[in-house]
Amino acid sequence: MDNDDSTALQRLIDKDQIIDLVHRYSYCVDHRLYDEVVELFTEDCVVDYGPSWPPVQSRAGLRQMFGDPDGGYAATSHHNANVLVVFEDPDHASVRTSVYAWHQRADGSTPCLWGYYHDAVVRLPEGWRIAERRLRALGTQDWNMEMHPAHGHDG
Amino acid sequence: MDNDDSTALQRLIDKDQIIDLVHRYSYCVDHRLYDEVVELFTEDCVVDYGPSWPPVQSRAGLRQMFGDPDGGYAATSHHNANVLVVFEDPDHASVRTSVYAWHQRADGSTPCLWGYYHDAVVRLPEGWRIAERRLRALGTQDWNMEMHPAHGHDG
Amino acid sequence: MDNDDSTALQRLIDKDQIIDLVHRYSYCVDHRLYDEVVELFTEDCVVDYGPSWPPVQSRAGLRQMFGDPDGGYAATSHHNANVLVVFEDPDHASVRTSVYAWHQRADGSTPCLWGYYHDAVVRLPEGWRIAERRLRALGTQDWNMEMHPAHGHDG
Repeated sequence: MDNDDSTALQRLIDKDQIIDLVHRYSYCVDHRLYDEVVELFTEDCVVDYGPSWPPVQSRAGLRQMFGDPDGGYAATSHHNANVLVVFEDPDHASVRTSVYAWHQRADGSTPCLWGYYHDAVVRLPEGWRIAERRLRALGTQDWNMEMHPAHGHDG
Repeated sequence: MDNDDSTALQRLIDKDQIIDLVHRYSYCVDHRLYDEVVELFTEDCVVDYGPSWPPVQSRAGLRQMFGDPDGGYAATSHHNANVLVVFEDPDHASVRTSVYAWHQRADGSTPCLWGYYHDAVVRLPEGWRIAERRLRALGTQDWNMEMHPAHGHDG
Repeated sequence: MDNDDSTALQRLIDKDQIIDLVHRYSYCVDHRLYDEVVELFTEDCVVDYGPSWPPVQSRAGLRQMFGDPDGGYAATSHHNANVLVVFEDPDHASVRTSVYAWHQRADGSTPCLWGYYHDAVVRLPEGWRIAERRLRALGTQDWNMEMHPAHGHDG
């Protein structure tokens, strides 16, 4: 295997692991596996889900934000698509992922959001982790919180 | 190409084929290609779509469940996401796939389900096939059937 | 690396680039990056989004169809899934991609379409590009245009 092939294979493996990381987030959130969710992030992760909350600045802060697995929405589905990975160097990449987030409240109403996660991911000795995540909204329905808009940012 | 690279490449190829298998299911169901759908399963497949139906125990039983391509819903869209593949050995894997299933009845109403397929897939001489599929619901709208819940299972 | 491995690796790389191409389309459309969208197509691309419009026959025609980034819908989300790539030869492939297209009008109403893109993609010196794209609808809601149906076509 020559050097070019080895590099190309490694790049595919890395991309596959990064896409898994993004998918695993949604699986764990929707199954309320909050202790597992935060393991997908770096210890000093920055997570900004909108102007209604102060940005999270650590894994512990993120765990606190998720709260009690028995509280919150009656159900959620974070449906990802269109994962786009751009490598900055072999150990850092930026990721854009479409999310269709369907939620159900106890009263049966279903607030929904369509948008994109803007992530920075980093390779640690234990694997790829999310270092930064920002949510940008394309649109919402029955959603009573202010969000960062998708437009007017770094396209 | 050394042994490690060969193994890593084969794993990527297998994962790609398994993801195709999951995607092909939804394509064929939504296009009512029911004879093709059942070719994606093993002969003795176990398919459990909820407590309202007895679990299917064979490919022939699955074909019977799908019924007449001209009957059933006026339209369906099985939109997959978040495909997560975990290999147990080189020939067996478990798969979790998010599904947003939109249906349209003849009267125009649109029952919807958000959930996960829990699959066991196996490599046969002719390729990867689904040996077991269980559907677990995160939530539903206008859905008049009892479903297996996503929570309280093997996370 | 023997010839078989090299061919298999190249196929995975090509497929990854084709999937990125499909994803990038949706990202660019939803962020109104119309000049970037048309760069994803060949100069003589054929794009047919339904019988309500004459099919586009060139990249310039496609750019014209998208129109003014400040006009049109208040918001859109083109959520892809189930990307299926079939290679015809090393430089040509056909692609089927599920799309859940959510739109929001200025009056707050939300026309939606569930369907499949049927693409022909080609390898050019600068990379993979979309040569043909046809949209086939499985179903719609609050959608006041006639569409090509998904059924009764080439499966």
